[in-house]
Amino acid sequence: MITVLRLGHRPARDKRITTHVGLVARCFGASRMVLTTRDDDLAARVLAVGERFGGDFSVEYEKNWKKLMTTFDGVVVHLTMYGEKLGEVVGRIPREKDMLIVVGAEKVPGFVYEHSTYNVSVGNQPHSEVAALALFLDRYTEGAWEKNEMGGRMKIIPSARGKRVETTG
Amino acid sequence: MITVLRLGHRPARDKRITTHVGLVARCFGASRMVLTTRDDDLAARVLAVGERFGGDFSVEYEKNWKKLMTTFDGVVVHLTMYGEKLGEVVGRIPREKDMLIVVGAEKVPGFVYEHSTYNVSVGNQPHSEVAALALFLDRYTEGAWEKNEMGGRMKIIPSARGKRVETTG
Repeated sequence: MITVLRLGHRPARDKRITTHVGLVARCFGASRMVLTTRDDDLAARVLAVGERFGGDFSVEYEKNWKKLMTTFDGVVVHLTMYGEKLGEVVGRIPREKDMLIVVGAEKVPGFVYEHSTYNVSVGNQPHSEVAALALFLDRYTEGAWEKNEMGGRMKIIPSARGKRVETTG
Repeated sequence: MITVLRLGHRPARDKRITTHVGLVARCFGASRMVLTTRDDDLAARVLAVGERFGGDFSVEYEKNWKKLMTTFDGVVVHLTMYGEKLGEVVGRIPREKDMLIVVGAEKVPGFVYEHSTYNVSVGNQPHSEVAALALFLDRYTEGAWEKNEMGGRMKIIPSARGKRVETTG
């Protein structure tokens, strides 16, 4: 089971980016996103996608994220442009354990670097935590998202032109 | 040469997402981003990263995006969750031609589906144009970003803990 911990979410400023973080987490193989700040509007948006397109992704809150990190029973991966290269570290990460992926907003406390099992960079350049999460999950799950069937009542049928959606139930 | 056309950018609403689109474009192998709406503040943010971290990524404006699409000398790829599966289409895309990648905001006109060489989906699920762009470029360039050296005056040294930055000039 993969959990994404989104640190430092500010509802006014970060709503759209954190929504993208949540939808990417859901689509690329995580089971839940934990926010340190309550944002029911955001949670509703992310859950509405699951309600239509399937899966059982959840959004939860935990103010005491330090405790979540230090008591987590599994591997803690912090995505940061300062970390070890993804291609070099991904093969060393154990597969049989649960994973907590920490994705920060702009400033991340030193605590996170110190208490993560792995600090991992997806390119040592500034870009996007949304992209970093997608590529990390892609590599870690070996592209499992390409074959995932979420079993939702809405299903998009791949198409060279236009939009094809199947709706059931 | 790869150009990213960001359709429908609204400066008030989309600034952060479009900034992420621009930084991902830069980091994963595109040379420029074209916006249909002027946003000098956004352009300055994206260019400031290039100024420090290297490369020669540019941000340009073109109101007449339909003309840009229809007169583009190369392959036009539209990223959409309704498109053909990335894994099935990426091998058919010619490598020797320039590429225009169209990344929409929420509603994309039918014109874009009709006038793209390929409509490509990165997972047939709603998630993020930022993640879709990163994964498309990753697959199309066969992970070239992992070896890219941008030659900037600031360079991050991958590190298991903490932050290491080399600054020159």
